[in-house]
Amino acid sequence: MIIKTKKHWFQLLFVWNGSVLPKLLPRLLLLFGYAVLITYSKDTLVRYHMELSPVPFTLFGIALALFLGFRNNASYDRFWEGRKLWGALLNDTRSLARQALTLGNTAKAPGTFIQYLIAFTYALKHQLRHTDATADMERLLPPATAALLPGAKYKPIVLMREMGKWVQAAKAAGDIDSIQQAAFDQNFNKLSDIVGGCERIAGTPIPYSYNVLLHRTVYIYCFLLPLGFVDSLGWLMPVVVTFIAYTYVALEAIADELEEPFGTAPNDLALDTMSEMIEHTLLELNDQPLPAKQTVIGDRYYLT
Amino acid sequence: MIIKTKKHWFQLLFVWNGSVLPKLLPRLLLLFGYAVLITYSKDTLVRYHMELSPVPFTLFGIALALFLGFRNNASYDRFWEGRKLWGALLNDTRSLARQALTLGNTAKAPGTFIQYLIAFTYALKHQLRHTDATADMERLLPPATAALLPGAKYKPIVLMREMGKWVQAAKAAGDIDSIQQAAFDQNFNKLSDIVGGCERIAGTPIPYSYNVLLHRTVYIYCFLLPLGFVDSLGWLMPVVVTFIAYTYVALEAIADELEEPFGTAPNDLALDTMSEMIEHTLLELNDQPLPAKQTVIGDRYYLT
Amino acid sequence: MIIKTKKHWFQLLFVWNGSVLPKLLPRLLLLFGYAVLITYSKDTLVRYHMELSPVPFTLFGIALALFLGFRNNASYDRFWEGRKLWGALLNDTRSLARQALTLGNTAKAPGTFIQYLIAFTYALKHQLRHTDATADMERLLPPATAALLPGAKYKPIVLMREMGKWVQAAKAAGDIDSIQQAAFDQNFNKLSDIVGGCERIAGTPIPYSYNVLLHRTVYIYCFLLPLGFVDSLGWLMPVVVTFIAYTYVALEAIADELEEPFGTAPNDLALDTMSEMIEHTLLELNDQPLPAKQTVIGDRYYLT
Amino acid sequence: MIIKTKKHWFQLLFVWNGSVLPKLLPRLLLLFGYAVLITYSKDTLVRYHMELSPVPFTLFGIALALFLGFRNNASYDRFWEGRKLWGALLNDTRSLARQALTLGNTAKAPGTFIQYLIAFTYALKHQLRHTDATADMERLLPPATAALLPGAKYKPIVLMREMGKWVQAAKAAGDIDSIQQAAFDQNFNKLSDIVGGCERIAGTPIPYSYNVLLHRTVYIYCFLLPLGFVDSLGWLMPVVVTFIAYTYVALEAIADELEEPFGTAPNDLALDTMSEMIEHTLLELNDQPLPAKQTVIGDRYYLT
Amino acid sequence: MIIKTKKHWFQLLFVWNGSVLPKLLPRLLLLFGYAVLITYSKDTLVRYHMELSPVPFTLFGIALALFLGFRNNASYDRFWEGRKLWGALLNDTRSLARQALTLGNTAKAPGTFIQYLIAFTYALKHQLRHTDATADMERLLPPATAALLPGAKYKPIVLMREMGKWVQAAKAAGDIDSIQQAAFDQNFNKLSDIVGGCERIAGTPIPYSYNVLLHRTVYIYCFLLPLGFVDSLGWLMPVVVTFIAYTYVALEAIADELEEPFGTAPNDLALDTMSEMIEHTLLELNDQPLPAKQTVIGDRYYLT
Repeated sequence: MIIKTKKHWFQLLFVWNGSVLPKLLPRLLLLFGYAVLITYSKDTLVRYHMELSPVPFTLFGIALALFLGFRNNASYDRFWEGRKLWGALLNDTRSLARQALTLGNTAKAPGTFIQYLIAFTYALKHQLRHTDATADMERLLPPATAALLPGAKYKPIVLMREMGKWVQAAKAAGDIDSIQQAAFDQNFNKLSDIVGGCERIAGTPIPYSYNVLLHRTVYIYCFLLPLGFVDSLGWLMPVVVTFIAYTYVALEAIADELEEPFGTAPNDLALDTMSEMIEHTLLELNDQPLPAKQTVIGDRYYLT
Repeated sequence: MIIKTKKHWFQLLFVWNGSVLPKLLPRLLLLFGYAVLITYSKDTLVRYHMELSPVPFTLFGIALALFLGFRNNASYDRFWEGRKLWGALLNDTRSLARQALTLGNTAKAPGTFIQYLIAFTYALKHQLRHTDATADMERLLPPATAALLPGAKYKPIVLMREMGKWVQAAKAAGDIDSIQQAAFDQNFNKLSDIVGGCERIAGTPIPYSYNVLLHRTVYIYCFLLPLGFVDSLGWLMPVVVTFIAYTYVALEAIADELEEPFGTAPNDLALDTMSEMIEHTLLELNDQPLPAKQTVIGDRYYLT
Repeated sequence: MIIKTKKHWFQLLFVWNGSVLPKLLPRLLLLFGYAVLITYSKDTLVRYHMELSPVPFTLFGIALALFLGFRNNASYDRFWEGRKLWGALLNDTRSLARQALTLGNTAKAPGTFIQYLIAFTYALKHQLRHTDATADMERLLPPATAALLPGAKYKPIVLMREMGKWVQAAKAAGDIDSIQQAAFDQNFNKLSDIVGGCERIAGTPIPYSYNVLLHRTVYIYCFLLPLGFVDSLGWLMPVVVTFIAYTYVALEAIADELEEPFGTAPNDLALDTMSEMIEHTLLELNDQPLPAKQTVIGDRYYLT
Repeated sequence: MIIKTKKHWFQLLFVWNGSVLPKLLPRLLLLFGYAVLITYSKDTLVRYHMELSPVPFTLFGIALALFLGFRNNASYDRFWEGRKLWGALLNDTRSLARQALTLGNTAKAPGTFIQYLIAFTYALKHQLRHTDATADMERLLPPATAALLPGAKYKPIVLMREMGKWVQAAKAAGDIDSIQQAAFDQNFNKLSDIVGGCERIAGTPIPYSYNVLLHRTVYIYCFLLPLGFVDSLGWLMPVVVTFIAYTYVALEAIADELEEPFGTAPNDLALDTMSEMIEHTLLELNDQPLPAKQTVIGDRYYLT
Repeated sequence: MIIKTKKHWFQLLFVWNGSVLPKLLPRLLLLFGYAVLITYSKDTLVRYHMELSPVPFTLFGIALALFLGFRNNASYDRFWEGRKLWGALLNDTRSLARQALTLGNTAKAPGTFIQYLIAFTYALKHQLRHTDATADMERLLPPATAALLPGAKYKPIVLMREMGKWVQAAKAAGDIDSIQQAAFDQNFNKLSDIVGGCERIAGTPIPYSYNVLLHRTVYIYCFLLPLGFVDSLGWLMPVVVTFIAYTYVALEAIADELEEPFGTAPNDLALDTMSEMIEHTLLELNDQPLPAKQTVIGDRYYLT
């Protein structure tokens, strides 16, 4: 169920939660006060030749919007790629569960394998959020396997090796043949790509120089704006300048949040919900009862 | 058959249906009235220093167009990816039907399997639109299989497991061998990717902050425009300002519609028509008679 | 052979064929006449406060260029994806022909199979252009197979089933084994993707609201331009305004043409030539004589 | 070895070779002279109302930059896709060589097969550049195979059929089994995609209307610029206008070069060098001596 | 562990390390001095008609921002593709290690194979950075294999051949069968794509003409800016102009760094760290002790 009540266009203008406005308000009020001050001291500014023409600000504001657009695209791409990877995780674990349930001797009791898949999902979530996986691993895995993990740095990868061993054991037992093993193996390759893709996004930010440059430029620009528009806008200048600054500063702030999509900020990905969804769909496939709903913290979007 | 009579360039200017204009008209009339009011009270505005220069509005209007362009791209990508996924569904169900018809012992009566594929398609449509799948499931599936579905949350996935069992049964019966089973299995993997891809688009909107920010900025901008252009445009100002506002507001409205392509709004995807098309092509492949044309509601584009 | 004599930069300014100028000329002349009229009546306009400042037109012209850029990208992507699909068709039919010629018992006479591939190509072309496939089907296929097609709605798909049967018959005869059959089958899956991809582009245009909005905005903008620039450009205004309008209107017209790349407009894809190219390369692979060159109508680009 | 000595930022301003400036200089000097003439005749222009405001030129210049950006992107994508295809050719021929060297009976003398791969590469290069392949084919292939090619229109495809026959012969001889043959076959499919991808780029230019429109618009715009800026820039106008025109005209010229990346212009792909690199790496894999370095003409970038 | 302490928005304005500012400071100071000089000699400039209007600079600045945006996108894409390729290397070596550990007879001692994979990674790093691979090869490989490499130009490819031989030997020994060999072989194909992808990025820069044109245009533009804004900005002109120039010049400098992502500049990819990470995860998979942490120089981002 998507918790997203469609708002009327007019209501949407006054949304507070889920907007970045609360976070930015102090900075914007600072700018507003400063702009009022500039308007007061207009005559003094003119005397010291400190009043500026609005033309260069137009030029620079548009150039800056272009550069911000680049940053936004790059950040959103990271967010969306992270989402795609978790979507692929859902698809791939479902495919592996289907293979365990339907390929070869169907009496081979795939319950353990499906628990591995669920544990794999939670292990990846904990690795990406730097949280402790122990409780989930003990809840989901047989004690012998769970005991392998606390010392392991790359837990999902170690779990995938265990899944590979499970498949090889099924082959050795004659439940599946080489060709069916190869079908599992191809999906393991995809799982490996998913883990590595998430690690890539989590471990390599957008080059730091870009972010420093754009952050600096946006803020300096906003604090020069009052000097540029004091003459052409008069007493409405503080309002207009704060409005313009809000847009630039908010876009930069959203891009900054989306850049690392695996965190727990309001716009980040709902990893908790998605892990639980994978758990539910896999258990349903195996006709197992679903666990009691867990409390989910830090996720905003709820799927299906 | 594409129902899209190519219009003359001049006629196209006056299209009413299929345009977002009807929905937006009240807001635009409100703006127009307000702009007329501003024009009337021009002298008063000047007295209170409320008249603005058009330069900052040029700057901001272009920056806003850039940011809107980003939103438009992201929304259209979601729409087009949704369409691609349903196109892939068509391709993949056709491939699976071809495999059932031509791989191995061709006397293995693939009719049931093809019904599964059609039911899978309808089940996905109902899941994405949150509608009741029961009638279609009972129409298409053997009673034993249909009875599995009402309690299932992820119906297409459960159906795919049943298809996997059908293939394993064919292998157990000696109709196909392991290698031919693997060929089915690869296409099941693709089906799984399609289901998950649709769930991803349906379940994860564009980050809410973006939408709030752009919506707010577009409307505030449009309501500041009359103050900015009252001096330079005179009595034509309300016309020009409403025209400019129409473009910005309409683009934002279209992007908002396309963002969730699986709904039933005029610009959303024709899931009903596409489901029926898949049903027809699969039945044709199996030399079965086509069902009577059903009434389709809520779809605008008709394929082939 | 690419029929594209590289023109000198100066000659290129006066190209008439292959440009969209001929089609747009009447509209542009209308605009020119109207602009001359505005220039004449300049003093009257001023008296009725109908003269406009050029600043809002600058703002809006740039915003419009951005939105047009979006439409252009989307249309060009459709054109180029259509081209890629037909390129993939060439690659894939060549691959299937190579498989028929080299996998397993090479004495299995792949001539029929290669004829199927050629017929498949022509059947797809006719489906996309809504033309009659009968003549080509009778020319290329054995009578029994050709007789299956007139009643079929999705002819290429039915032909692919026949190809699948040919491969299964080869396997039943012991000419190829299951693994070699799987190699054919994977390329059939790709063929299925190609057919569905073309149907997707042909059946789902860019959302209608976008096209209506941009068309309307471009033309209204062009007809407001003379009012905006009459004062700043004087008697050169009609020339400059018509030149600017030419660019906007022409871009919109090209995007409109490219949006549906499977038609027979000058900028559409050369499906006739490409079908013939596939026929030639497949016959050459099988050391068969090439058919006499057919007359090709409606294609502009000639490959290799 | 990359021949690209990193230049100091100051030196880079005066680069002559590898820049498009030499080619464009005559046109730019023509514009400069014309701009000087306009500056001289300033008073006369004013008398005949031929002097223009710079505002519409700002609008149009930015719109034009946007449209040029589209053309640049499309051209660069073609260039980079061409490069990717040749990169894939390197990867794929290496993979096939590795398969020939390590799959199955390793005593099966893969030398001939590796010669086929090298000849395939050169045949593709000659097809794309419309040059004569005979010398290279005779140098690389056994006489019987080389004799097949002069009459063939699609030489790389015919060579791929011969490679397929080599693999089938190895299977018939018991050196490899069906599964290993399938591994070769999958890489042949990729080779087929590479050939078709190159043919697509070589055979289908960017729609002609786009190029005509943009070329025309860029040049007309540049020749109207002096009229627009004569008043605001005075005697520096010819310098500034020529500088602006240089950027627009140069970008259009570079895009024009990149559009067809398989030619021999300075910015085109180094097909000669890349063919030689493939030859070297394949021979090295087979522990064969490298041929004497050939003279390479028409390539600028040297790899590794 | 990601070494990236999140900075407060205010602190971020004064970041020095990791910014390109230090490198650019001399050029910007030169510009500042020159701008001060222009402001001093304002009256003289006017006398010689050397004073310019800011309008053409606005036009050109925005056009330039658009063109810079193109360069930035292309450079960032190269950086990010390079990162993706190294991410794929991680995924693929993990997959191959898992296959060696779980497919077929698990007593076949995969230690040697895993050492090959690690050596492969280091060999690729050394090839891309043109550094000496000998020490790493001797540390990681059995002497007989290490002895093959010093004379080899494409070391990773030669190593992949050795890996292929290892797999074929395992098959000959009956530890794995043909189908399991094919699973290895598919991942070898991917490794081959990764090597070639890296060579492509390292060996083919963005067309030189683009870089020359944009570099030249950015710097000439910045040095013309003082003439354009001396009148409208007065004594604040040097500050504003230097600020604008900083943004353009810094973006060009960052794009220049990112264009070749395999170097050792501050914004380049952390190949040392990534190689070590691959070594660690592969050893962990095989339950081997990790080597002592090596000193890493020239890398900025640390993963996981």
